[in-house]
Amino acid sequence: MNYCPVCGSSEISLKIPDGDNRERYVCSNCGTIHYSNPNVVVGTIPSYEDKILLCKRGIEPRYGLWTLPAGFLENGESLSDGAKRETKEETQADVEMGMIYSIFNIPQINQIYVIHLAKLKDLTYGPTSESLEVKLFKKDEIPYEELAFPFVSKTINYFFDDYKTKEFSLRVKDIIRK
Amino acid sequence: MNYCPVCGSSEISLKIPDGDNRERYVCSNCGTIHYSNPNVVVGTIPSYEDKILLCKRGIEPRYGLWTLPAGFLENGESLSDGAKRETKEETQADVEMGMIYSIFNIPQINQIYVIHLAKLKDLTYGPTSESLEVKLFKKDEIPYEELAFPFVSKTINYFFDDYKTKEFSLRVKDIIRK
Repeated sequence: MNYCPVCGSSEISLKIPDGDNRERYVCSNCGTIHYSNPNVVVGTIPSYEDKILLCKRGIEPRYGLWTLPAGFLENGESLSDGAKRETKEETQADVEMGMIYSIFNIPQINQIYVIHLAKLKDLTYGPTSESLEVKLFKKDEIPYEELAFPFVSKTINYFFDDYKTKEFSLRVKDIIRK
Repeated sequence: MNYCPVCGSSEISLKIPDGDNRERYVCSNCGTIHYSNPNVVVGTIPSYEDKILLCKRGIEPRYGLWTLPAGFLENGESLSDGAKRETKEETQADVEMGMIYSIFNIPQINQIYVIHLAKLKDLTYGPTSESLEVKLFKKDEIPYEELAFPFVSKTINYFFDDYKTKEFSLRVKDIIRK
């Protein structure tokens, strides 16, 4: 932040406001305190019988690797609504939303991931502007060496562990980036 | 947003960037797209035997009403770390963190609440700069008519429902503001 988005002044500095205990960007001209807080990424693990739906990333980062559909929660959305929207945008699939299944804290990049279980309503899915390819995989077909992010491999492993008993329970995990 | 925080230009307008499907603040001078996304509020329901700890708000909004300790998740924190910090800041209490217990979507104000179970490690608690009074309440002592927010009353009700069987399960709820 170089300029105050409220008044346009360049008198912006990092300081601890009165009554606070953290450094914030504060404008010396108009006094506005500019907060920055973590973002929420919402997604699903879409399943159909014993298969899950993955997307081959058509955008950076991790272009060409496989991921679960997920993206930033938008203003005005619930977690479930955002996850359903991202699934549609990245896979064309219309899903029946299930429970919140995995939550990942990634504190170094100020992100919280919230992944829901979801079931494909039918076999309508396919590539989108964000996905080169969209495909259903059985457990032994998963391209484990070509998964885009740790949240993807962890959620897939949780899913197939729980699929044996069909008892799915929430997992919460910190992902520490090197 | 009146000025671009990157270049200081006042040429800011709401438009849908290429490849996007939502209006964002875009700077015509330097091309930066300024995203705005929901915030996460983290908190706890701190308990001690059959009692829970509430704080009487010493700040607006809802000054003088009772709440559970909660506040905005900060950059660099996990959900659990943020909830533990907020509990300490608002009640002086050091808690042993438990599971994520209630999640509330409040889409109209772009907030997601994540409340953890927590146990008081001892009976050290008291007022803070944010809380006029901090007190343990049994179920029949709760000031139900003086609770600050819907997430507070709902989480308290879930807790005492589950306390009967000691089986606590995650609740996810949309709170729609009028």
